[in-house]
Amino acid sequence: MDREIYLDNSATTKPYDEVIEYIAKVSREFYGNPSSLHTKGIESENLVKKARGQIAEALKTDSKDICFTSGGTESNNLAILGYLKANPRAGKHVITSEIEHPSVLEVYKQLAQEGYKVDYIPVDKDGVIRLDFLKDIVSADTSIISIIHTNNETGAIQPIEEICSLRKKLCPNAVIHVDAVQAFGKTLINPSTCNVDLMSISSHKIHGPKGVGGLYIRKGLRLKPVLIGGGQESALRSGTENVPGICGFGLAAEIIFSKLDDNYKITNELRNHFVKRVNDTFEDAVVNSPENASPYIINVSFPNLKSEVLLHHLEQKNIYVSTGSACSSRKTHHSHVLKAMGVSSKYIDGAIRFSLSHTNNICEMDETIEALKEIIPIISIKRGGKR
Amino acid sequence: MDREIYLDNSATTKPYDEVIEYIAKVSREFYGNPSSLHTKGIESENLVKKARGQIAEALKTDSKDICFTSGGTESNNLAILGYLKANPRAGKHVITSEIEHPSVLEVYKQLAQEGYKVDYIPVDKDGVIRLDFLKDIVSADTSIISIIHTNNETGAIQPIEEICSLRKKLCPNAVIHVDAVQAFGKTLINPSTCNVDLMSISSHKIHGPKGVGGLYIRKGLRLKPVLIGGGQESALRSGTENVPGICGFGLAAEIIFSKLDDNYKITNELRNHFVKRVNDTFEDAVVNSPENASPYIINVSFPNLKSEVLLHHLEQKNIYVSTGSACSSRKTHHSHVLKAMGVSSKYIDGAIRFSLSHTNNICEMDETIEALKEIIPIISIKRGGKR
Repeated sequence: MDREIYLDNSATTKPYDEVIEYIAKVSREFYGNPSSLHTKGIESENLVKKARGQIAEALKTDSKDICFTSGGTESNNLAILGYLKANPRAGKHVITSEIEHPSVLEVYKQLAQEGYKVDYIPVDKDGVIRLDFLKDIVSADTSIISIIHTNNETGAIQPIEEICSLRKKLCPNAVIHVDAVQAFGKTLINPSTCNVDLMSISSHKIHGPKGVGGLYIRKGLRLKPVLIGGGQESALRSGTENVPGICGFGLAAEIIFSKLDDNYKITNELRNHFVKRVNDTFEDAVVNSPENASPYIINVSFPNLKSEVLLHHLEQKNIYVSTGSACSSRKTHHSHVLKAMGVSSKYIDGAIRFSLSHTNNICEMDETIEALKEIIPIISIKRGGKR
Repeated sequence: MDREIYLDNSATTKPYDEVIEYIAKVSREFYGNPSSLHTKGIESENLVKKARGQIAEALKTDSKDICFTSGGTESNNLAILGYLKANPRAGKHVITSEIEHPSVLEVYKQLAQEGYKVDYIPVDKDGVIRLDFLKDIVSADTSIISIIHTNNETGAIQPIEEICSLRKKLCPNAVIHVDAVQAFGKTLINPSTCNVDLMSISSHKIHGPKGVGGLYIRKGLRLKPVLIGGGQESALRSGTENVPGICGFGLAAEIIFSKLDDNYKITNELRNHFVKRVNDTFEDAVVNSPENASPYIINVSFPNLKSEVLLHHLEQKNIYVSTGSACSSRKTHHSHVLKAMGVSSKYIDGAIRFSLSHTNNICEMDETIEALKEIIPIISIKRGGKR
């Protein structure tokens, strides 16, 4: 089989051809350092400015609110640590959820070691954070709340607007940081309308290059940099700008946002078709993603098998999926997200993430079902403990 | 004039064509996330492994000693902050020099604010750190010494081996961090032979892509990450690896190190020729770079003119130079490096950095001299204060 069915788009996407060509062009023709005083520097600076405009346009905000970073992880680190470092008098109570990406969770773990009181909001069976719990724990001492917009393992969308309203009422001094890495380029998020203070985005999840990300920072919010030096990015992120990467990110955002609704519609149809076929075909299978989740992520548990075994059988057929999020898939521990949802071990062990792009098509979804139909009977652990 | 004379290679270099093509190929064909369990992930992981080997080979060290970062700035931040965070019982005395890059200087300034005792080693008139001063200040409480290998403004090479010997005798517990961003790919530096503990390198200074760097970490040395999350790069640097960028860095290193001696010889001839012509042609000009400096950087003061004015006149003739380092050139303050060398304001005001690559040629150097001959009389401030 020559064709390749890539259903691991939440781990990373294939860059658009136009993006790859643009990166090569910028690398070849506009290689100046944006900090250089001469034309070659200014040309590069202008390209960065253009890309900043493209990202700002995508977020319906001002260019000045965008800080470029090396990726989603750095954006999340900068948002949380940068805010707390710049605001040492902010309260020592910080809140996140049980279903965050490691680049948020690990930062909160570090904050706990530094003496912050950290609360983790639990989620319901759909993987959506419990607002009632949040209401009970917020206080005047709460300084920052970090919530993922679209969970990377299940696609469950979190109630960001409700969190912002709740903040306004109960803890107006707390800032809200949204990890929108899996949402950006897939749905319209307008951080200023939502009253979000900080929002992390990444390039390689939207068919842009790896090694680039961005952070939306609400005007007036003070942040201290994590990486210091030459003072690039308004002193928020030092280091020579990755001009070709930033340009590629800007172009990818422009392309994907120009067809945001169409892409969503395509992906939604693919999701609905696939979920229906899964339910019709595999009576034991359980779709862990809630119905109103992002259509880009479908998490399905096939009980009585090991997801890793299924993954490798699928790749024999050139179908690429994930057992969880890419970042933690090499670790042997259970999915902390499914665990937080109360999914039992048996179902966590057999959980597969099919993550879609608008570039996928219906045939690919059908072929994947056919492949699953072939593989599952072979690898299922029969009752009694043997295959 | 169509041809372009780029003499700002210490700010950034034009990527090799092979590197640009390789980055495009990797982006197109090997777009998997190295953390993904399937073949597409493993292919990407193997490409990162290959690049790590290329960098290790260039440094005559082991692949395991190399950590990829987003650039020289991050490498410097990670080396210093990462070491001190991981070793809280290390002494509270830290040492650097007066002529470091901002990504080192700013970190030491922050350490001073955190209660560390920071000493800055002064330099002699050649811009070389004073070993006698260092001898006097090191103590059992010294935990880290950060020294630039090749100064980015003058090319002055620092006595790294002597510093390492001195450390062995006087403060064996101190670790030595070398910022080798301007040295890597231009001269052979073998951190393990020199007994250097930490060494920062960057890709875009060696005709590789922007947005990638590396840190050599001596085996057994404990570092804590600055960016945390998914645990990539042996948990020293989280965030999805910039696979195409890392691959481009590896290839650029392989290309440049395969002709290291030839490149050096070419550049040395260009430098000698240029310096001779400067001295023969402009009687007032002073070459600030010492004779035994790296041939890749020639810092020349033309008194009685403003270097920025000269820079813009040169760019009219498609000749690109710098007034100092790119990182700080947008700031109006004086060069801290030339100031540390005791250069007077008049000479600092007229200082230009011509930074070379092996890709330059003798005609370009001659054309630059001719351009200077035309421009300087026009822009010189005549005695009495008027032009």
